[in-house]
Amino acid sequence: MSNDEIALRELCANIPGPSAAASAAARTRLDRLTKPPGSLGALEPLIVRLAAITGQVRPEFSRPAVLVAAGDHGVVAERVSAYPQSVTGQMMLNFLRGGAAINALAANAGARVVVVDAGVAADLPDHPGLRRASAGRGTRNLLREPAMTRAQASGALLAGARIVAAECAAGLDLLALGEMGIGNTTAAAAVAAALGDGDSDDWVGRGTGVDDDGLARKQAAVRAAVGRIAGVTDPLEVLRQVGGAELVAMAAACVAARHRELPVVLDGYVVTASVLPLTALRPDALAHCIAGHCSAEPGHRKVLARLGLSPLLDLGMRLGEGSGAMAAVPLVAMACAGVTEVPTFGEWFG
Amino acid sequence: MSNDEIALRELCANIPGPSAAASAAARTRLDRLTKPPGSLGALEPLIVRLAAITGQVRPEFSRPAVLVAAGDHGVVAERVSAYPQSVTGQMMLNFLRGGAAINALAANAGARVVVVDAGVAADLPDHPGLRRASAGRGTRNLLREPAMTRAQASGALLAGARIVAAECAAGLDLLALGEMGIGNTTAAAAVAAALGDGDSDDWVGRGTGVDDDGLARKQAAVRAAVGRIAGVTDPLEVLRQVGGAELVAMAAACVAARHRELPVVLDGYVVTASVLPLTALRPDALAHCIAGHCSAEPGHRKVLARLGLSPLLDLGMRLGEGSGAMAAVPLVAMACAGVTEVPTFGEWFG
Repeated sequence: MSNDEIALRELCANIPGPSAAASAAARTRLDRLTKPPGSLGALEPLIVRLAAITGQVRPEFSRPAVLVAAGDHGVVAERVSAYPQSVTGQMMLNFLRGGAAINALAANAGARVVVVDAGVAADLPDHPGLRRASAGRGTRNLLREPAMTRAQASGALLAGARIVAAECAAGLDLLALGEMGIGNTTAAAAVAAALGDGDSDDWVGRGTGVDDDGLARKQAAVRAAVGRIAGVTDPLEVLRQVGGAELVAMAAACVAARHRELPVVLDGYVVTASVLPLTALRPDALAHCIAGHCSAEPGHRKVLARLGLSPLLDLGMRLGEGSGAMAAVPLVAMACAGVTEVPTFGEWFG
Repeated sequence: MSNDEIALRELCANIPGPSAAASAAARTRLDRLTKPPGSLGALEPLIVRLAAITGQVRPEFSRPAVLVAAGDHGVVAERVSAYPQSVTGQMMLNFLRGGAAINALAANAGARVVVVDAGVAADLPDHPGLRRASAGRGTRNLLREPAMTRAQASGALLAGARIVAAECAAGLDLLALGEMGIGNTTAAAAVAAALGDGDSDDWVGRGTGVDDDGLARKQAAVRAAVGRIAGVTDPLEVLRQVGGAELVAMAAACVAARHRELPVVLDGYVVTASVLPLTALRPDALAHCIAGHCSAEPGHRKVLARLGLSPLLDLGMRLGEGSGAMAAVPLVAMACAGVTEVPTFGEWFG
């Protein structure tokens, strides 16, 4: 076990509890607003959770960002994706030049895009928006061998945590997690299946749009990967064996956010699968996480149910890049406006 | 039949068809963007519909507003609400002074709030945000007699259409419809039940939070109202008999918006019930309407299903005021950014 992995375990074990005082005060305030009690529906428990996470009775978010973590995957050798591996690098350039869907959605929401190379098999140019945290040029084929060495996984852990620390120091107050990586829905399915129950096929979907033959190859790959690591119960070891560098970086980013009272908006299946192992380290590890949406990938709904998270949006999106999380960011900000800017009956009529 | 009512019928009959050219061009553009086809899920048909409505391949919305139409209801004599009638007028003051939830949500979304007195039983002060369109100080008791005279209904129709025309002239490009009126979920249920099928009780919910006895009184009132107008099949006559002035104003506003290629984001049960009669005049009358959300009021889901509208949000909100529509406005704007600002593969790599 590396020092970084030990550090992550310790960080998980020492996660601060949510602020009971702030959440109780937020609940009390909500019930006193000039509106029928409970009438904001699911936005009310969201506001109470945000208060608990941030310690602020009236949380506000003015500096959101999406961290798009990217990596390549050796399992693409099994022809599990509709796209060639080179698309990962091409999309990284697209993110950096502002031409991807996530750039448009983030700009619309007033959010920054932070692109993380956690292990892309391409040479990327220097760019102010690029964080270099590469743990190698793609993982090994998770069907046949551990996706990452211990050193690689350790590097990705450290990088994910460091990037969040630096962004927090620069004022970040709401973190959306997104990802890019051809082959990474196969890695996500393998992690979820290894930590989940039932038939491993149930955790496998079509990702960016693989055909029937590709889906069968993907299911076979996940089944074989889960079989290969039978007996591995340690959640971080599962992530190293059948996950990917961007998944590891996102898990670390998620823990780091929790230590900084930073709410995290989760995107789709890959992001949600990447943080799933944390709950095996500590059941309430994701108390600061908001499910931005439920994607079209069938495994996503299953992971969300397992985590007890209700998605804010359920629009059948399956783009990745953090797009589903970003689509929910305005709603999170608006929910907070509902509690920060609306007067209570006492303030209004008192 | 009044001249205004005839005019509305003619406007409905002469609704311009959606722009097939713009929607086809939007669909083609979507499929060429640097993302997997279909990966924006329900946002893609939304974008295509917005193109069809506006005639713009790349629709953009920079001047949204919510029209909050308010009225009082004689049926409150049946004790169908958890709140006294005076709350309608109090909330109108709250809207005008910027202290209600809708003000906070609209400010967050960069939208204006236009408050319409369609028939509130209170004296309201002059205010730049108030549109006076009162068709009387509250309706009559719809359980026992027509809620409005023909002249009242006609006045509300004209007012709703005129307000939208004036707002469009001032630059409005996206209209959210909201409402306020103690007792108006009873009117909405009566309209929906009269035009719908099955047991009238199924169209009745708890509104702002009526107790079991209140719910039983509300169900009895709706049953009696529907029975009273048995044989009335004309949809606008149903609205006059068992609806309310703010419902009539919203129906007219909706038709006026269609003639100006203005997309309309619908709020909850009352708003959706108010535009339901239009589809009986012309089946595609609501082709320019977007269901912002599905509320906690059980009848709302039934009306949406009948209209074939899929809500963008489904968060159990039941505040009214346009809050559920406003919560969806950023998502509509963001969906458009997805098509207006993302390059196609040709623009990017060409």
